[in-house]
Amino acid sequence: MSETSGDDLTILKLGGSVITDKDSPETIADEALDGVVSAIAESGVVDGDAPAELIIVHGGGSFGHVHAADHGVSTTDGTHDPAAVTAIHGAMKRLNGVVVDRLQAAGVPAVPVHPLSAAARDGDAALTLPPAAVGGLRTEGFVPVLHGDVIAHTGQGVTVLSGDELVTKLAETLAATRVGLCSTVPGVLDDEGEVIGSITAFEAVATAVGDSESTDVSGGMAGKVEALLALSQPARIFGPAAVGGFLDDDAVGTLIDGA
Amino acid sequence: MSETSGDDLTILKLGGSVITDKDSPETIADEALDGVVSAIAESGVVDGDAPAELIIVHGGGSFGHVHAADHGVSTTDGTHDPAAVTAIHGAMKRLNGVVVDRLQAAGVPAVPVHPLSAAARDGDAALTLPPAAVGGLRTEGFVPVLHGDVIAHTGQGVTVLSGDELVTKLAETLAATRVGLCSTVPGVLDDEGEVIGSITAFEAVATAVGDSESTDVSGGMAGKVEALLALSQPARIFGPAAVGGFLDDDAVGTLIDGA
Repeated sequence: MSETSGDDLTILKLGGSVITDKDSPETIADEALDGVVSAIAESGVVDGDAPAELIIVHGGGSFGHVHAADHGVSTTDGTHDPAAVTAIHGAMKRLNGVVVDRLQAAGVPAVPVHPLSAAARDGDAALTLPPAAVGGLRTEGFVPVLHGDVIAHTGQGVTVLSGDELVTKLAETLAATRVGLCSTVPGVLDDEGEVIGSITAFEAVATAVGDSESTDVSGGMAGKVEALLALSQPARIFGPAAVGGFLDDDAVGTLIDGA
Repeated sequence: MSETSGDDLTILKLGGSVITDKDSPETIADEALDGVVSAIAESGVVDGDAPAELIIVHGGGSFGHVHAADHGVSTTDGTHDPAAVTAIHGAMKRLNGVVVDRLQAAGVPAVPVHPLSAAARDGDAALTLPPAAVGGLRTEGFVPVLHGDVIAHTGQGVTVLSGDELVTKLAETLAATRVGLCSTVPGVLDDEGEVIGSITAFEAVATAVGDSESTDVSGGMAGKVEALLALSQPARIFGPAAVGGFLDDDAVGTLIDGA
């Protein structure tokens, strides 16, 4: 059981590659999703008290990414086509609906929060994500479940807001206690493929995770490590089997702590 | 054609009773919806320029109201049941999806905005609705389409946010130029059933529209008149046939101007 107090807040990201079959459009990875849902439901973090001590964010996997690629939309390249907006956003709402339904069925008081309805970027790509709804839902004991999405972006129409960027923004805005990223791999791997126990500076792992400049902005490991190092909260990257351990404060995967 | 400038903003509410068949659960009033969608698409307000000069809000009709009643949820009585939240919210998203799709098919750059993801009430029922997403989408030329919904409400779980309350909040927050409510009736009716041309004070029409205290908080005419009188913008209440006229600045229905 977790020994968290009522003021604790965990932000848990479920990678899109974990909960969907990335090779097949709009296909849920049933067994993997059920596994992480069970681990969440059985953890001490979900205890039915208010405020809820958990916020969940999930990625796009074979739902959002396929449509975003079809329409040429990324975190930096936008679209003004309303049909592209609803294609990408609609796919993400379908995935989110499945995740929320399964969490509810397992006893987690999950409710959906769709970033397109709340967030925006200005002309310098700076992200605004007002916390009113997420904070209000959490206060009432609900577990908000957000997802990578498209959002308004001044001068670009809409661009992609990745699940990873949502996680870091929520952690800062809501002063989260800790952050966890459930990935397909069991942690950040060194040159020999072994999980690195902890990372406190990027330089120490640059050769293992690659140059952050050249990495896919929405999903690459170097970008994740760099973003998590910048947080004032400790973060962990771990595999699907370690979700329960992470929620119960076990030292799973890779600890990333740049503070 | 409207003679609005780039800084003008019209907020148009489509009543739930107009666009759905209130007597049949989750049933669209196809002909009526297509009629108002065509009128919007053909109006001078939707001209493809940015920022968009129109925000649309729709009510719940036979989608939201049925589920809200099933779960005993109103603007003042809430629920902490996550399944009730997704039942009501999910029905409103289905209706919103139909409205957005038909608007897009008619050439209106409509995109969905779901209030549960953005808004919240505090313990005094005061509404917070951060304008980041709606404002950002509008800036990029999209027409945001919002809807009555459930939202977090401190101490109550979630309660209903009516389309009418959304309209007045958006009008204030975004300094709208004018507000229009498309209702099933052609305006506010006097004792003889005739449309009242203009209303500048509630007392003048109190006997005709009834006591505002005893009126259905989510849909009654007295409540609408009182809320619209409190706005600094002029508002009109009119029937489905007058949507095009309203958008093109004709003197349709009842003018409500308390400023």
